[in-house]
Amino acid sequence: MNTRSTVMQPLAPLLDAQGLIAAQREFAAARDWERFHTPRNLMLALTGEVGELAELFQWKNDAEVAAMTHSPHEFERLQEELADVMMYLVRLADVCGVDLDHALRDKLRKNAQKYPAP
Amino acid sequence: MNTRSTVMQPLAPLLDAQGLIAAQREFAAARDWERFHTPRNLMLALTGEVGELAELFQWKNDAEVAAMTHSPHEFERLQEELADVMMYLVRLADVCGVDLDHALRDKLRKNAQKYPAP
Amino acid sequence: MNTRSTVMQPLAPLLDAQGLIAAQREFAAARDWERFHTPRNLMLALTGEVGELAELFQWKNDAEVAAMTHSPHEFERLQEELADVMMYLVRLADVCGVDLDHALRDKLRKNAQKYPAP
Amino acid sequence: MNTRSTVMQPLAPLLDAQGLIAAQREFAAARDWERFHTPRNLMLALTGEVGELAELFQWKNDAEVAAMTHSPHEFERLQEELADVMMYLVRLADVCGVDLDHALRDKLRKNAQKYPAP
Repeated sequence: MNTRSTVMQPLAPLLDAQGLIAAQREFAAARDWERFHTPRNLMLALTGEVGELAELFQWKNDAEVAAMTHSPHEFERLQEELADVMMYLVRLADVCGVDLDHALRDKLRKNAQKYPAP
Repeated sequence: MNTRSTVMQPLAPLLDAQGLIAAQREFAAARDWERFHTPRNLMLALTGEVGELAELFQWKNDAEVAAMTHSPHEFERLQEELADVMMYLVRLADVCGVDLDHALRDKLRKNAQKYPAP
Repeated sequence: MNTRSTVMQPLAPLLDAQGLIAAQREFAAARDWERFHTPRNLMLALTGEVGELAELFQWKNDAEVAAMTHSPHEFERLQEELADVMMYLVRLADVCGVDLDHALRDKLRKNAQKYPAP
Repeated sequence: MNTRSTVMQPLAPLLDAQGLIAAQREFAAARDWERFHTPRNLMLALTGEVGELAELFQWKNDAEVAAMTHSPHEFERLQEELADVMMYLVRLADVCGVDLDHALRDKLRKNAQKYPAP
């Protein structure tokens, strides 16, 4: 029996954001926006988008939140705000030189140690 | 010559989070945490992690932020906080039934219309 | 000489928000909004307003932020966003039964112990 | 009859933060921290504290949040986090030259116009 093949198989990624990273690099470069995309600026922009996402949930109980799925207009806003947060988060990681898949793998492992399953 | 083949080729994804989605579903199920993962709870947890990420940048100027890359301890904290925000963001999208790749594709298209490249 | 008079003098308050507390109670009652003003709802609304405040600073360097003071339009937006955050913060404290002046006095004392002046 | 006395009476303030403003100016000066207290730095620090406040509510339903009042330990944490957010908010307004009482008066008036009472 040979277990090496298992060991040597590359792990499936937790997150592959290469397409989004490339699209955002190109988007920023084409508009000469790279000089604005410092980590601190992106952190503030991320905070702004997180605020817009929070507003979607602020006056709703859990049943009303669940009903958003059935309202095309509300679901579209939810998709947009989630996308906005994701775009700044991935861009922030990119300009900081952080490999998100690696970071996630590390953090999941730590979480599993910190909160062992029963 | 036929250009339809190009049209019909599946687009490369902007973001593939399937691995992370599956890992988090399993993590929550194994700990009976699914009942805690309502959208509003996850939104508050996301806000908490965004706060921890912001703290890394709060008293630093741009040069000091850039230097974080060269400090193994600070870079590890940065990786961790970015991973924490990503984990709650992807989990929130998952419990809301939002396909992030689709949402991102839509938002990038809208952004390109709103801010045309010169 | 008698120093007791100093000791027994009531301390000047750090923060007196009674006017705002009363105005917001009346505002909510007149619109039947009290049922929406749960701590968790107000926390999400506060997050939303913090996001709007952050947006004012996101693409500006320190000199550009300082210049906001001289732009009537930008200064008005800054005033508004600061007021919005303050309103939800004071309302949240009120519905949680927290006396902000007492809480601030306590926290300033702890901070002075944690970070002694040189 | 003379109504001028009413007109000329100063309005009771909505918020009087003079004590806190003075205490924080002194605290920062004594530690040579004024150079750190730029608006953008304070905005990020505020975001950090808002995150800590959000964490107190993240896994609790409304009944569990209400019960925090009866737990001395949890109530103290709530007081502390509310105080931390308030301290950075008042400091941010101060370094931006914003008079919070004036800003609040203005915003309450606008809100009353935007959402007229029935």
